[in-house]
Amino acid sequence: MTSSRQLDRSGLGVLTVDECVDRLRAARVGRLAFFDDGEPMILPVSHGMDGNAVVFRTAPGSKLLVAEQETAVAFEADGIDADRRAGWSVVVRGIARTVESRGEIARLSLLGVWPWADMAERSHWVRITPRTITGRVVVHPAW
Amino acid sequence: MTSSRQLDRSGLGVLTVDECVDRLRAARVGRLAFFDDGEPMILPVSHGMDGNAVVFRTAPGSKLLVAEQETAVAFEADGIDADRRAGWSVVVRGIARTVESRGEIARLSLLGVWPWADMAERSHWVRITPRTITGRVVVHPAW
Repeated sequence: MTSSRQLDRSGLGVLTVDECVDRLRAARVGRLAFFDDGEPMILPVSHGMDGNAVVFRTAPGSKLLVAEQETAVAFEADGIDADRRAGWSVVVRGIARTVESRGEIARLSLLGVWPWADMAERSHWVRITPRTITGRVVVHPAW
Repeated sequence: MTSSRQLDRSGLGVLTVDECVDRLRAARVGRLAFFDDGEPMILPVSHGMDGNAVVFRTAPGSKLLVAEQETAVAFEADGIDADRRAGWSVVVRGIARTVESRGEIARLSLLGVWPWADMAERSHWVRITPRTITGRVVVHPAW
């Protein structure tokens, strides 16, 4: 029903929160943006969805530190075909926190989230509790 | 020559700066991380390379504001196959600045950089002067 889709001021189609969550669930990899020594940093992350929350596994390092300090992060996933100038992008903004409960960790482990580069021991889970979930999609005019 | 490639502590292969720039040049779309109202934000960007600098076109908005204020940003491009658990990721960290010179804008316009969602008028150019360029690649063990 692209014909009835709301457009933003750039002419991009606005995805509903449910559509955003569906696309995040279908995507296997996104990118996490966070502060690292006071400057923006961005790293690819294999993620899963726990309801509307983004979850991922990580090893000790900057991403875990961000979660331990419960700081603001942004997470983005997209599917963009530059040749066709088509695609979508979803952004989650919220607070990253480590998951401490053993029961919860056991439950998240069933989500089938595997690091894209499975070389390190990634035993820690991080949950991004969303404050906002926004998404855009290219809406081609009918021709 | 993956057999001689340096590995980081996670067992990922370290890309040289030249390899990073080559991959950035081949990629059509990356993601820009920046501060937006004091919190991390991340948006997809169609980019080009001007030497080792990432350049992109933008419309008035948060990405342009970041460049006008000459603040720190991070830019990431990747090629990740989650099913094969294979891929690479390159991160550029540096300062974003608007390109003001008409001559330079004319030159950049020849790079063939087109927004992935070509709905808005994007007449401003931004250059990210890199302070660091780092990249990783999954190095599969020989089997």
